[in-house]
Amino acid sequence: MVTLEQVNAVIGKAMPSMTYTYTTRDVCLYALGVGAPSDWLDQDELKFVYELSTVGFVALPTFPVVYTSEMIHQLISGRIGEIEFNPMMLVHGEQYLEIHKTIPTSGTITCQPVISAIYDKGSGMLVVTDVTCLDETGECVAMQQSSMFIRGLGGFGGERGTSEKSNLPPERKPDAVHEEKTLDRQALIYRLSGDINPLHADPNMAAVGNFDRPILHGLATYGFATRAVMKHFCDNDPSKVFAVRARFSKHVFPGETLITEMWQEDNTVIFQTKTKERDEIVLNYAGVTLKT
Amino acid sequence: MVTLEQVNAVIGKAMPSMTYTYTTRDVCLYALGVGAPSDWLDQDELKFVYELSTVGFVALPTFPVVYTSEMIHQLISGRIGEIEFNPMMLVHGEQYLEIHKTIPTSGTITCQPVISAIYDKGSGMLVVTDVTCLDETGECVAMQQSSMFIRGLGGFGGERGTSEKSNLPPERKPDAVHEEKTLDRQALIYRLSGDINPLHADPNMAAVGNFDRPILHGLATYGFATRAVMKHFCDNDPSKVFAVRARFSKHVFPGETLITEMWQEDNTVIFQTKTKERDEIVLNYAGVTLKT
Repeated sequence: MVTLEQVNAVIGKAMPSMTYTYTTRDVCLYALGVGAPSDWLDQDELKFVYELSTVGFVALPTFPVVYTSEMIHQLISGRIGEIEFNPMMLVHGEQYLEIHKTIPTSGTITCQPVISAIYDKGSGMLVVTDVTCLDETGECVAMQQSSMFIRGLGGFGGERGTSEKSNLPPERKPDAVHEEKTLDRQALIYRLSGDINPLHADPNMAAVGNFDRPILHGLATYGFATRAVMKHFCDNDPSKVFAVRARFSKHVFPGETLITEMWQEDNTVIFQTKTKERDEIVLNYAGVTLKT
Repeated sequence: MVTLEQVNAVIGKAMPSMTYTYTTRDVCLYALGVGAPSDWLDQDELKFVYELSTVGFVALPTFPVVYTSEMIHQLISGRIGEIEFNPMMLVHGEQYLEIHKTIPTSGTITCQPVISAIYDKGSGMLVVTDVTCLDETGECVAMQQSSMFIRGLGGFGGERGTSEKSNLPPERKPDAVHEEKTLDRQALIYRLSGDINPLHADPNMAAVGNFDRPILHGLATYGFATRAVMKHFCDNDPSKVFAVRARFSKHVFPGETLITEMWQEDNTVIFQTKTKERDEIVLNYAGVTLKT
């Protein structure tokens, strides 16, 4: 059993900083992992997967989520301080990302993570980590906040936390709807960007986590949805995206079709993403903040 | 114009040796590039794309073709010695690969290439390169012979060479037939294994090479076909493959379906591969030599 002392011992503590070094190839591989290009003959998304693009190679705005891969590796070990858990019970809860400067298409990033909160949700434990991502000059490229949910690890007597419901869709039909099928192999491609949790690849390990099949990474769906917003509201220009927020409300199985519904409200594109096959909402309380 | 002197100046000359350093991630990415796994829920091919596989992670037998990526980079520069050419006119002619020991799933390989012959085929120039691939202990992992065809560069008065037609299919129905669809994005995945020729990614550059669309790498098709042979004759066990030979007789467009017909004759599985959509033979004079 987890104790409140074990939990309090890690809250607010800076974790060791970690570096992530990458090349243009990693930027391309990430983009393929989140479904780009939807049309391989169209230069519009080819620029995300082809480093020699004549229209200018650029990183997808959600690329910085891979900077924290090393943190994922540590979590998969099943230990945070003195708290032990089964990594197959770990699922991504929420992700917030802010982009502070043009994302380099290669380089070394230093990540400085801090566990800012741990909540007792009854059915599980929610671990919130804030990460500052700095480039070689020390400038901030991105700020991220990840919430990880560990199923079955609640009831340790901690704070429940608030349940903020931001980015609620307005009461009108979506301004845009985007549908895109994921590949059966989508998680096998996405995992090469750093999240190698067996839950996303191995049928036997997925069964340990009570899933019928391996599930797609929440962050892969996050990338698909952000691409949908970019297509409809940003002319596929990543420099128009300032921030992306989403809650991972349900899992996606590789091969399923994602339907993203979008509503623009001022400088925010509120969105929610569903699986077509099961009609489940998989991303909600979600929005892309456009650069003003 | 190319002169016979320019051609003779490079024949038989050892080119600079080159190293290729890789990790398990590169082995997985290559396997995804050649279509593995055809069934993502089946451990049988999952072992080629998942480094934590419980049945034992292994490299596909055709993986060594990526060891010579640096050679491809040099060819794409459009120059061999004093011979200059448009790299969009370069296509793969033939590939022969022999596997001499278990392919490491990570490590550094040193390649020693020699241009063993250059033939004048009238419509183009055929450049044959022999490459020895050594591991860190100096042991030979693989021997390879690549023939590259440069369209439009014939007529320089060189030898025509023989036109060996080995591995002709016998006069009976195939012993096995395997059908597999490539992805629209297949070449965009495969190219991350090192052959970044724009012919395989950029519609504009493909047009320069007189192709309607970017074409799939011949070596990607080669990998698909070898996987087909392994499924039907090797129980998906790469250690049963000693050598693979094929001629790239026609191009494949990404998204097309490959049909591989196979005939076992003693310890050789003769095969040919067609595109289902255009009924064109794309690999012929092809065979996998099984280990005896």
